Amino acid sequence: MNDVIKLLNAHRSIRKFTDEAIDQATVEALVQAGQCAATSSFIQACTVIQVSQGEVRDRLAICAGNQAYVASAPVFLVFCADMKRLKLACDMHDAEMLSGYTEQFITTSLDCALFAQNVVIAAESLGLGCTYIGGIRNQIAEVADLLELPELVYPVFGLCIGHPAQNPEAKPRLPLSVILKQERYNDSEDQARIAEYDQHVREYYATRTGGQKSMTWSEQMSDMLVKESRPHMLPFLQSRGFIKH
Amino acid sequence: MNDVIKLLNAHRSIRKFTDEAIDQATVEALVQAGQCAATSSFIQACTVIQVSQGEVRDRLAICAGNQAYVASAPVFLVFCADMKRLKLACDMHDAEMLSGYTEQFITTSLDCALFAQNVVIAAESLGLGCTYIGGIRNQIAEVADLLELPELVYPVFGLCIGHPAQNPEAKPRLPLSVILKQERYNDSEDQARIAEYDQHVREYYATRTGGQKSMTWSEQMSDMLVKESRPHMLPFLQSRGFIKH
Repeated sequence: MNDVIKLLNAHRSIRKFTDEAIDQATVEALVQAGQCAATSSFIQACTVIQVSQGEVRDRLAICAGNQAYVASAPVFLVFCADMKRLKLACDMHDAEMLSGYTEQFITTSLDCALFAQNVVIAAESLGLGCTYIGGIRNQIAEVADLLELPELVYPVFGLCIGHPAQNPEAKPRLPLSVILKQERYNDSEDQARIAEYDQHVREYYATRTGGQKSMTWSEQMSDMLVKESRPHMLPFLQSRGFIKH
Repeated sequence: MNDVIKLLNAHRSIRKFTDEAIDQATVEALVQAGQCAATSSFIQACTVIQVSQGEVRDRLAICAGNQAYVASAPVFLVFCADMKRLKLACDMHDAEMLSGYTEQFITTSLDCALFAQNVVIAAESLGLGCTYIGGIRNQIAEVADLLELPELVYPVFGLCIGHPAQNPEAKPRLPLSVILKQERYNDSEDQARIAEYDQHVREYYATRTGGQKSMTWSEQMSDMLVKESRPHMLPFLQSRGFIKH
């Protein structure tokens, strides 16, 4: 295993940061590393909004479900899927862009994820820690207003970056035999493998919380998935010109 | 700039591979590196199907728009967004999963992208080359049939991996000033910056093709975006239990 693969394997989300600042040249180097990720048909559909500490950041932290580290992280970036820049490219040639396709929602959203994952890896290679903030989708309309996002742009997720002030263990992942399948989808043995994995997760939480938390993966998922999942997302996205057909 | 950031910056898609095989232990190490990426609320929603060379792979290459390297790449992986495993977790606790939310489509799709980008970086760190194959969504229903994907699972993209038999230049990206914005979305200067960037792209293509291809970024985008974009995607996804509301 080389150093890069070791770095990837060592990933864990960091939610506590020291006060040490990150200079802007570093932020720019991270975002440039993000730009180098693959982009679907060269659309380059990811726009990054860097939000400094202050009132807007505090509001974003509230929108994300009162996650204090969103307000306090040295760097906070919002990754936006951006079809508006593509419309601008069309306008430059008097071409009428056809928009609203679900496929475009997919490619622009995936562009953001590939881009952001490069940013995370670049940050971690510098000893920084990160955590993705999907919670900004809790109150996505307010987030879009705070960032003055126009139609054809939506905020996919945020990212906190800073110097780690904690050192959590990496969370155990599902067994490879469940994740990697050969030739076709076949989950006939998955339940038994998940049951075994569940016990590893239970031990992980018990160790990490000194016995306070006892929870398996399948329990955690089943607790979560009996509830609605941000039902405002589709109407919001459609109001911004995405997933119309 | 450290070695990891240099590696990220050196990315380019590789579409020609030598015949040299990749051993299965390496494939497994790459997929395990993928598993270590962040996952939304721990859902671990990415399932990878490895398809060996043969009849199904040949069909996939045709589905992807006759991309020969899909058939011939030493390794071909299909990344699937998987809500079925989450349903299994719910079934294990007699819990009824609420599905069909657009939000779930987003989290499972993003999980796949973060995972896959780790695989790509791990592969590139070993001197391998990759190219994402969004083209499998051209004929996504047939791809789903070929891989025997059940309801609640959809193929997001494929990935070719192999030893590079070409050494293309990295494609120039949009200027950082267009991509990285401060505090709020503001594109008032973007058109001028894109016009300048367009000339770099024109030079890039001219150099790469010995003057055969003369195309700017905004031209390329405007040519593409006046056309429909895989209009079958939404009905397909809905038929598989995604984006119902």
